[in-house]
Amino acid sequence: MKKYSPSERKSLRVAALAGGVGGAKLAQGLAALLPPEDLTIIVNTGDDMEFLGLKICPDVDTVLYTLSERANPSTGWGVKEDSFACLSALKSLGEEGWFKLGDQDLATHLLRTQGLRDGKSLTQVIGDLARRMGISHTILPMCDAPYPTLLETDAGVLDFQTYFVQQQCSPVVKRIYWNHEKPGEASPQVMQTLQEADCVIFCPSNPFVSIDPILSLTGVRELLKTRFCAALSPIIQGKAVKGPAAKMFQELGFQPSASAVAATYQDLLDVFFLDVLDEAELPAVQSLGMDCLAIPSLMPTLTERTQTADLMLKYIQTLKSQGETL
Amino acid sequence: MKKYSPSERKSLRVAALAGGVGGAKLAQGLAALLPPEDLTIIVNTGDDMEFLGLKICPDVDTVLYTLSERANPSTGWGVKEDSFACLSALKSLGEEGWFKLGDQDLATHLLRTQGLRDGKSLTQVIGDLARRMGISHTILPMCDAPYPTLLETDAGVLDFQTYFVQQQCSPVVKRIYWNHEKPGEASPQVMQTLQEADCVIFCPSNPFVSIDPILSLTGVRELLKTRFCAALSPIIQGKAVKGPAAKMFQELGFQPSASAVAATYQDLLDVFFLDVLDEAELPAVQSLGMDCLAIPSLMPTLTERTQTADLMLKYIQTLKSQGETL
Repeated sequence: MKKYSPSERKSLRVAALAGGVGGAKLAQGLAALLPPEDLTIIVNTGDDMEFLGLKICPDVDTVLYTLSERANPSTGWGVKEDSFACLSALKSLGEEGWFKLGDQDLATHLLRTQGLRDGKSLTQVIGDLARRMGISHTILPMCDAPYPTLLETDAGVLDFQTYFVQQQCSPVVKRIYWNHEKPGEASPQVMQTLQEADCVIFCPSNPFVSIDPILSLTGVRELLKTRFCAALSPIIQGKAVKGPAAKMFQELGFQPSASAVAATYQDLLDVFFLDVLDEAELPAVQSLGMDCLAIPSLMPTLTERTQTADLMLKYIQTLKSQGETL
Repeated sequence: MKKYSPSERKSLRVAALAGGVGGAKLAQGLAALLPPEDLTIIVNTGDDMEFLGLKICPDVDTVLYTLSERANPSTGWGVKEDSFACLSALKSLGEEGWFKLGDQDLATHLLRTQGLRDGKSLTQVIGDLARRMGISHTILPMCDAPYPTLLETDAGVLDFQTYFVQQQCSPVVKRIYWNHEKPGEASPQVMQTLQEADCVIFCPSNPFVSIDPILSLTGVRELLKTRFCAALSPIIQGKAVKGPAAKMFQELGFQPSASAVAATYQDLLDVFFLDVLDEAELPAVQSLGMDCLAIPSLMPTLTERTQTADLMLKYIQTLKSQGETL
């Protein structure tokens, strides 16, 4: 896959907002095209959890594993060819085993937990892990302090991993919220990245539990209103490529569709990308007052991820240069 | 292997002092013969270490794994058929890999570390692990606070695991010591067990780095002078069955032999057991002012461990009943 060369385009500083599997795919495509100084990936930490004293950051790890080509291609999360001997031993010792803790994955959690106990910030620890994995792009957790996404469901208030992994997304979601008594603070590195970005790309992640946590941090939404923002739909043909986004849309009273995703970001987006299969929704999205382009977005392999990122970046460049000449 | 029945012997409350592999073998034999109310195993924690924030108790774990039949029969330590996927991942992320951390073994360390972080004492946590492993006998760490054994060597002062695993016992040991500014305190459970014991058995563990740490705790040596004490030699034919005991003897200026072991405990022992291959040393040991019996002591299998324990308990019973009738 060729890299963008300076002759083809001006430098474009991109901040990508990402959740787990879908977000990581586009982030990997962007990373194949943009040099490290032009791409920073800001990742949701609302799903973070503690398990046996270990700090686990599922979305951050999916991005780390995907960018370092460690990810399990069949699940999208976890490490490829991982084993589960420790988890089996924990179960044989009477522990709950619903959280899928791979043996190689454990190494990441051990290093992160030790870094935090040594007094490093989550941002420092994730930076350290990215370097250890040979990743040259910057990956930032959205914030340093825990800021869990809470789901009010017909089975009570659940944190995300309990809802997602233990309960297999079966409870009906009534409301998604964060601790509004004490709003989350984006890390200084996240705020600086967003301030300096020529373009903020919302990766195809669940709007409610992957992107909204980032947007819910103090000052982020206001800052993004001053930035050029683009999003790629995580919904194709009314379905989420992975995860519970479509089910959540329905439970929260929306018809799951690409244009419904665009509507949730209406006040922020300059351009929305949807899948070629949803081309019929172009007018609906345009009626929300934003540009829209249909592109292939399933991105199973790195080649397709890079192609999708390439199409997005070129279109964003075109729109931005049009904006500059107007 | 038949259990002792009340018709054969009076109840004998045994406290066994143990280090790692050798100690665990005899402890397993004793556990096959004595009911849980008559046997408590007190285990060295001078080798304990932290690795990646995990609290690791090598000797305690060897006893736990041996008594629950989880131990790796070829090494004596670690879990049988364990894998090392997490350790490999840690190495690939740039960590040192000298400490052999098995994936199943990790489950034990995770549970212990979490228990301690939750505010439980090491004694409580080990009791919990023993129950989870289906062990009905009480296994006590010698103390709740860390009390590391330090080795002054020609390569500097080393903790035990660095000397034993990382440096493969190659440095010359000049002195073995503990923090004498702040003497270690045996746990209340250890002191009570020793007070109530009819007999204290020093298992065939390294005298310097397995048994001495227990004896170095405040009040233990004085208390043992009031108890009936027996020891089984960890040295057979001038060699340690496992580990650096013989090398340490030489470096500290002693000829490694069963009688040299007996001499290190001279002020404490009522009876010393040595291997049948060392029968020639019986007079030397007797000249130290203690009874002595030669028994098979290699104990590769549970059958032999139980037979050795049986021979020891019967001889101790005989000596004690003679003492009572005198």
